[in-house]
Amino acid sequence: MAKIITFGEIMMKLSPQNYQRFLQTPIMEATFGGGEANVAVSLSCYGIKTSFVSCLPNNDIGDAAIRELKGLGVDTSNILRDGRRIGIYYCEKGASQRPSKVIYDREYSAIAEAPPKAYHWEEIFKDAEWFYFTGITPALSDNTAETVKKACIIAKERGMKVGCDLNYRKKLWSKEKAREIMSELMDYVDLCISNEDDAENIFGISAENSSVEEGIIETNSYSNVAKQLSDRFAVEKVAITLRESISASQNGWSAILYENGKTYRSKKYDIHIVDRVGGGDSFAGALLYALTTNNDNQWAIEFAVAASCLKQSIEGDFNRVKLEEVLALMNSNGNGRIQR
Amino acid sequence: MAKIITFGEIMMKLSPQNYQRFLQTPIMEATFGGGEANVAVSLSCYGIKTSFVSCLPNNDIGDAAIRELKGLGVDTSNILRDGRRIGIYYCEKGASQRPSKVIYDREYSAIAEAPPKAYHWEEIFKDAEWFYFTGITPALSDNTAETVKKACIIAKERGMKVGCDLNYRKKLWSKEKAREIMSELMDYVDLCISNEDDAENIFGISAENSSVEEGIIETNSYSNVAKQLSDRFAVEKVAITLRESISASQNGWSAILYENGKTYRSKKYDIHIVDRVGGGDSFAGALLYALTTNNDNQWAIEFAVAASCLKQSIEGDFNRVKLEEVLALMNSNGNGRIQR
Amino acid sequence: MAKIITFGEIMMKLSPQNYQRFLQTPIMEATFGGGEANVAVSLSCYGIKTSFVSCLPNNDIGDAAIRELKGLGVDTSNILRDGRRIGIYYCEKGASQRPSKVIYDREYSAIAEAPPKAYHWEEIFKDAEWFYFTGITPALSDNTAETVKKACIIAKERGMKVGCDLNYRKKLWSKEKAREIMSELMDYVDLCISNEDDAENIFGISAENSSVEEGIIETNSYSNVAKQLSDRFAVEKVAITLRESISASQNGWSAILYENGKTYRSKKYDIHIVDRVGGGDSFAGALLYALTTNNDNQWAIEFAVAASCLKQSIEGDFNRVKLEEVLALMNSNGNGRIQR
Amino acid sequence: MAKIITFGEIMMKLSPQNYQRFLQTPIMEATFGGGEANVAVSLSCYGIKTSFVSCLPNNDIGDAAIRELKGLGVDTSNILRDGRRIGIYYCEKGASQRPSKVIYDREYSAIAEAPPKAYHWEEIFKDAEWFYFTGITPALSDNTAETVKKACIIAKERGMKVGCDLNYRKKLWSKEKAREIMSELMDYVDLCISNEDDAENIFGISAENSSVEEGIIETNSYSNVAKQLSDRFAVEKVAITLRESISASQNGWSAILYENGKTYRSKKYDIHIVDRVGGGDSFAGALLYALTTNNDNQWAIEFAVAASCLKQSIEGDFNRVKLEEVLALMNSNGNGRIQR
Amino acid sequence: MAKIITFGEIMMKLSPQNYQRFLQTPIMEATFGGGEANVAVSLSCYGIKTSFVSCLPNNDIGDAAIRELKGLGVDTSNILRDGRRIGIYYCEKGASQRPSKVIYDREYSAIAEAPPKAYHWEEIFKDAEWFYFTGITPALSDNTAETVKKACIIAKERGMKVGCDLNYRKKLWSKEKAREIMSELMDYVDLCISNEDDAENIFGISAENSSVEEGIIETNSYSNVAKQLSDRFAVEKVAITLRESISASQNGWSAILYENGKTYRSKKYDIHIVDRVGGGDSFAGALLYALTTNNDNQWAIEFAVAASCLKQSIEGDFNRVKLEEVLALMNSNGNGRIQR
Amino acid sequence: MAKIITFGEIMMKLSPQNYQRFLQTPIMEATFGGGEANVAVSLSCYGIKTSFVSCLPNNDIGDAAIRELKGLGVDTSNILRDGRRIGIYYCEKGASQRPSKVIYDREYSAIAEAPPKAYHWEEIFKDAEWFYFTGITPALSDNTAETVKKACIIAKERGMKVGCDLNYRKKLWSKEKAREIMSELMDYVDLCISNEDDAENIFGISAENSSVEEGIIETNSYSNVAKQLSDRFAVEKVAITLRESISASQNGWSAILYENGKTYRSKKYDIHIVDRVGGGDSFAGALLYALTTNNDNQWAIEFAVAASCLKQSIEGDFNRVKLEEVLALMNSNGNGRIQR
Repeated sequence: MAKIITFGEIMMKLSPQNYQRFLQTPIMEATFGGGEANVAVSLSCYGIKTSFVSCLPNNDIGDAAIRELKGLGVDTSNILRDGRRIGIYYCEKGASQRPSKVIYDREYSAIAEAPPKAYHWEEIFKDAEWFYFTGITPALSDNTAETVKKACIIAKERGMKVGCDLNYRKKLWSKEKAREIMSELMDYVDLCISNEDDAENIFGISAENSSVEEGIIETNSYSNVAKQLSDRFAVEKVAITLRESISASQNGWSAILYENGKTYRSKKYDIHIVDRVGGGDSFAGALLYALTTNNDNQWAIEFAVAASCLKQSIEGDFNRVKLEEVLALMNSNGNGRIQR
Repeated sequence: MAKIITFGEIMMKLSPQNYQRFLQTPIMEATFGGGEANVAVSLSCYGIKTSFVSCLPNNDIGDAAIRELKGLGVDTSNILRDGRRIGIYYCEKGASQRPSKVIYDREYSAIAEAPPKAYHWEEIFKDAEWFYFTGITPALSDNTAETVKKACIIAKERGMKVGCDLNYRKKLWSKEKAREIMSELMDYVDLCISNEDDAENIFGISAENSSVEEGIIETNSYSNVAKQLSDRFAVEKVAITLRESISASQNGWSAILYENGKTYRSKKYDIHIVDRVGGGDSFAGALLYALTTNNDNQWAIEFAVAASCLKQSIEGDFNRVKLEEVLALMNSNGNGRIQR
Repeated sequence: MAKIITFGEIMMKLSPQNYQRFLQTPIMEATFGGGEANVAVSLSCYGIKTSFVSCLPNNDIGDAAIRELKGLGVDTSNILRDGRRIGIYYCEKGASQRPSKVIYDREYSAIAEAPPKAYHWEEIFKDAEWFYFTGITPALSDNTAETVKKACIIAKERGMKVGCDLNYRKKLWSKEKAREIMSELMDYVDLCISNEDDAENIFGISAENSSVEEGIIETNSYSNVAKQLSDRFAVEKVAITLRESISASQNGWSAILYENGKTYRSKKYDIHIVDRVGGGDSFAGALLYALTTNNDNQWAIEFAVAASCLKQSIEGDFNRVKLEEVLALMNSNGNGRIQR
Repeated sequence: MAKIITFGEIMMKLSPQNYQRFLQTPIMEATFGGGEANVAVSLSCYGIKTSFVSCLPNNDIGDAAIRELKGLGVDTSNILRDGRRIGIYYCEKGASQRPSKVIYDREYSAIAEAPPKAYHWEEIFKDAEWFYFTGITPALSDNTAETVKKACIIAKERGMKVGCDLNYRKKLWSKEKAREIMSELMDYVDLCISNEDDAENIFGISAENSSVEEGIIETNSYSNVAKQLSDRFAVEKVAITLRESISASQNGWSAILYENGKTYRSKKYDIHIVDRVGGGDSFAGALLYALTTNNDNQWAIEFAVAASCLKQSIEGDFNRVKLEEVLALMNSNGNGRIQR
Repeated sequence: MAKIITFGEIMMKLSPQNYQRFLQTPIMEATFGGGEANVAVSLSCYGIKTSFVSCLPNNDIGDAAIRELKGLGVDTSNILRDGRRIGIYYCEKGASQRPSKVIYDREYSAIAEAPPKAYHWEEIFKDAEWFYFTGITPALSDNTAETVKKACIIAKERGMKVGCDLNYRKKLWSKEKAREIMSELMDYVDLCISNEDDAENIFGISAENSSVEEGIIETNSYSNVAKQLSDRFAVEKVAITLRESISASQNGWSAILYENGKTYRSKKYDIHIVDRVGGGDSFAGALLYALTTNNDNQWAIEFAVAASCLKQSIEGDFNRVKLEEVLALMNSNGNGRIQR
Repeated sequence: MAKIITFGEIMMKLSPQNYQRFLQTPIMEATFGGGEANVAVSLSCYGIKTSFVSCLPNNDIGDAAIRELKGLGVDTSNILRDGRRIGIYYCEKGASQRPSKVIYDREYSAIAEAPPKAYHWEEIFKDAEWFYFTGITPALSDNTAETVKKACIIAKERGMKVGCDLNYRKKLWSKEKAREIMSELMDYVDLCISNEDDAENIFGISAENSSVEEGIIETNSYSNVAKQLSDRFAVEKVAITLRESISASQNGWSAILYENGKTYRSKKYDIHIVDRVGGGDSFAGALLYALTTNNDNQWAIEFAVAASCLKQSIEGDFNRVKLEEVLALMNSNGNGRIQR
């Protein structure tokens, strides 16, 4: 079975409980998350061997992050233990017309400061089939940008496939810088994942007749976005998640997968949001699972959308679901009847 | 005023908080519940004298279950104290497309192991007008199946009425075994309660043009289900609750009551689910209250549906509402305006 | 910049967690709130200098109320420290068809017993432009009714503007008493705020073709209510909030502002309720902010409705939002997309 | 077996968690307690039939107090449901050199306002052997003082025994008023309980060579205090608890029982305090149990001290222990080894 | 480096918070623990490769137990997934004179029902140097007794060492049965660990001049107990932990190690107890670590006592400490100064 | 009355609950603290006008820190809002032989990066009598070291007094660097505060016959340490706190104050530790209060020790006590009797 390597930052996430605003009470929930770590956890939950590559400080907080990943079955032996701090992000859950709020405190994190030469990719990639990263990792620092590139080169040399979720973060870099660096990295990418916004933000490829701000999503025009991405960067497959934001509590959720001129459209779910953070990552993780275990694009996009639909009903960044739960949703109408 | 006896298991329910998955954190909420206990609590809240018959181990956990029931006004003097353990059920609350999840750990519970002769029904039934049980109790063990039958016989001999909620649980017995034993017990039943599924699962009586899985409920065909149940088993009244599962967060909720060829239909509520476990029991408890205090079938079905609508907005298995709250909902449009 | 004085009671609010009923568990959340205190907090959050006038017992609980207000930037130097107790209100959050429930334990509170002469309005009003109170304050006791009147007289003598939210509370006084006292006070009022109910309860001015109980709101007829209020009491501006209660979990929310024959209508928000208590106060606070900093009635009513829409997505009575968050909502479609 | 009637106030107790100061966080634990209610709970835990007489408002908070008592087996059918509010006391747990802090908000409570004629003592006392009250009850209001006296008279007429814990509360009445009223009531008392302070505060009977403030307790001189109390008021038995306060975390705990010229001294326990509130009541409850079931003064005082020693290791005002736990402590050296 | 195999039950432990009694509130903390699992965790924390062998049901609760162990670095690949339930133990923390209370609900657990043939010891023992079990495992069922014996035989055949903590549990088996089965197993044991009680309970070997009940511990006579154990069963090393129970909050803690006629005595710690459950296991885990990495008996006994002293200041059954923390305590006087 | 300016860092403190280790559960308590902020809070609680000077990022977390200080009465108008992050410290509470554990994540904090010229000391010092800092502030960065020096110079020019707590932190700078910079700053200091360690760590001035590591404190030799500090740096008054660490749960606590050849010794308290962090700061704050309001050195040292004794019985870094509570402890024997 496939072994997949993901590389990125895992942060401590500090959140107030329920729908409280920051520090309305002194209680914070401290969990862990980060794009590539979330993907690793998803893969591990579906039974895929996964190693998460990162760097964490050698203290009790770094230990706790590793304990969490290990417990969920992710191989952590490729996590460097060095640097001064773990990145932190504060996250307040939105509701109704109030959006979720994220405050980053991730500068100077261990991974941002780890030099490219600290990672031994040849060893890390032993027996691996895929390398996965998101657009967040190269945005962290010059160190990480260089490391990602190096990893991509070695991965391709070894005949591995490379997956990338564009994941544009405006608080980390400018659109210009993102375009420059991501364009270069796209040359190595076999599977590109984007949300309804990223392609425009980074590459200026926009969907006609759609307005993300106003929650209007025109599936057809996203098919064209996928085509452009695929053509411009010679990417084999492009997947785009389509979130219709009705409010912070209610979203429409679907996706398309494009390959070789053909677009596969998933079912659309009307989601009552519990926690949408990590939704995109759960899509990516599930899509990687589906594409590495099953040769059917339609099945893959349905699996990925169902999995990420479930994520958004679960607290925390990780998609704590099992294979059979995703399959059950795919094979039902999602009416949520108790099984007892 | 009527006195009602209910017989069944009360379990400890262990649930994670909010929408967490099992053991996502070490905090569990430990409450108590079980079909017939829930009905007893409802009745007690409406002012009906109720005795709950069961068996609990003679330890601090058994004590706590009794403390809870006693506090809510249920007579616990007919609960045997014996056996090795209290049954447990783990319950994770669903949301959106993710269904609630129930794990039973109820084998070898005190009530399953208590021999039929341990219960003194003649004494228990003193001054009682109704005996109530659900299809869960005979499913627990041969002991409980025999005990229920014995209780039914004595109840009928004493001129009492017998109420039964079919409550099919596939994790406890097969459809075949359920049909065999329940068919026998139905001979004693005056009021039969079923959900949209039970009659089909146990007796193979299905509603045409309805698909529970897909959330399509055709009220007329359920009227026919009720008629068949009534005719086949010579049951005086049959009530059927009709849950339209749109998602784990949103349900339509109504019911019908059938008697003597006539079907009484309730208003339908669009429910934003807080906790649906115990919804059916709160319907049964309210219906028993209504039928024992009021001679009006239409009023009874409206009362029972309003009461059970409220239950689903309350945390825990018990329907912690007062009479006036149910009446207030019946007499309003359920728009939930604050009273202050 | 304007300085605004509000006068009223701040109570301790005791609430069970989540959707629990009262004392379902022993945990209560003890926060503070009260109409005029809530308005003061809103104003302070938008950067307006505000002093909250009240009376609190000189004990640790009174200290805590002051600590909370002070932390949020409200001037508390005009709060008398005397009397025997802080008023309490128990509040249980509703959901779906179950309304929120409020139990008052506010008799004999410090403010109700403080004699009118204890307040030195000339000093309090130094540099102030507005005096604000709600219909709750005169309802507390003869002391407070007299104090409000005295404050109004002095405010007008000093050329200040007076704002009043009618806020009828049937548990505090009868409609007759309310009409008598509020009629007298209306003579001093420049800005009158009402919800869809108050004008009818207090002054018998009702909206045609509307049924609050049934959630039917006819905006045009409320325009007429505003006109009548304005005409009868020579009030410069009248604002009316319009809540369409679909359920305790789902509300429509909009408002109108009437001045000089012209009605300004806001956008309407479909709100998924987190906590609606304090919604009206957050409207009043935002409207006062808007009217004192901006000369545009349409902008003012949009600002006030957006602000109070946000409040209802936040736990607790205070509207813990910043100016930029309200502006962001006004300038978006409220689809709640994460900013990161 | 004996039936015992206790009369007094049950309050809601609001406490911060652990060793927090008041409202350091918004979380409060809301439990119930009060001298005579605590005694009733102790008696019920030991299997004695007990009825607690009081008055509680007819609202959800009053219901919750009753639910708690009922769950613990106390008969609540003699609790009047009337009045405007339940008394509240705020309680902050002390530690080390920081004493526990109590703030009362119990004025105007339902029991303080209930008129003496509201209680039907002849009915209440049916089958009862003992009537028990503490010095707190007559201190609440003229109503309660008169009611206690009336109850005492009827109790004695019916041949019942009367027990009283002096329990002086300086925040409720002056020493002078206490002396006047308590002197009158002492005429009816058969069993008088006092702590190391009360006799001096109320009756001016002090122990030589002892200084409660400095934690110096001279057992012999307390024997003399008991004698004086017994002689002056013709009380059959006098028990005095002796607390040596080393710090808020560490106490010495013992007691004496005096009868007919003879003093029975208990073992002394060095207690590591978990929660000392209710310690005296647990002593009184245990002593009543011992004296009504066993004719041995030495055994009685040992039982009462062991029971109240255990209470101080338990959170909350009630002594949630069973008979066998007290007996186990009496028969061991209190070294707290796990039994498994 | 050594690899150590431990075999036994891991249970879910349900505990009320702080010093609450069972179900005083509905909140329970659900953690995991069990003698041999605790030892495995200790070993893993010190960097020893460890595999825990057990059987857990194939459901979400079993998954959670494994997640916890995995996170802490224990190899879980030898845990069978079968059976109907995980064993549960309810545990209430004692304080002062109130002992901790344990209620077992572990009958019919997965491990008790797993047949001996389900374990493949030859594979499990690959590369292992030690096999460790406690007297609890053979007490669970005939299945486990037979399995332990089989494992011991194979271990010895492979030249492995065998460690055993006698750990007598009177709620699981009689002294007679324990003696019979443990005597047989002792033939395979190289390192025997006992507390101050076990040797007497199982083998009738008692320490003179000591009274565990009264907390009197005579070290010399325990040296003799160790000698007898060593001689009777030809055990190479015998370690005995000596707990002086002053109260449930305060204990003296030391130990001896006996080998070949020589007794090594540790320092004694005066412990302020946070949670003593797991204290013995943390001793065993640390002793195994010390003996497999260091050839010095005196150092080993000091290390084991220091480690287990730390455990008792930590919540939960696992000894969540690192090597350097134990070493720091060994090299200090245990005065607990903050390092910052 | 005096106005006192303190300058330093306020951090977010993240702590697990009770005696849990870091991230044993995901719940963290997020409070705020820091040497000079703690002192400011103490002063404000005693009624002294205090302004805390610092720099905090302009985000919701910075807002929360300010909200906390403002609520407690500290003037926050001199806190700059700039920089990228708030410093964080993780703190795990020790018990028994397990020391508390502090992990710093305070590099790059707003205050460390704020340039000296950002502070306008002439304005800040308006009406102020004292300037206070600790040895932590200059250790943060070259920026803060320079800023402290500048503030000292201006303070002295204005005739203000300067107080300094040496507070050596080995994780922030070396002994050499500390000695160099602190020696320079000492020239401006009028009141120097030290614990039993600092003078030796920074200046090499050690107490004979004392061993902090072993908890042996020889008061006389500390008198000599004070004399040396006073002589070497021409400091008017020197105070030294003397902590005898018996364990992490039990400490002896006293202090001396030296002036002009004379040593004033306080009473010694045996403290049962709730939370010792902030103990030294509460001493400093109380001493500043005492010396600025009262001319009696003996009274001052008794007040400061009593105040800081209370702090250690309170959760969190701030000493949330009122003047009367400190006076009550000074005038009692600290036996912690409830006042009710």
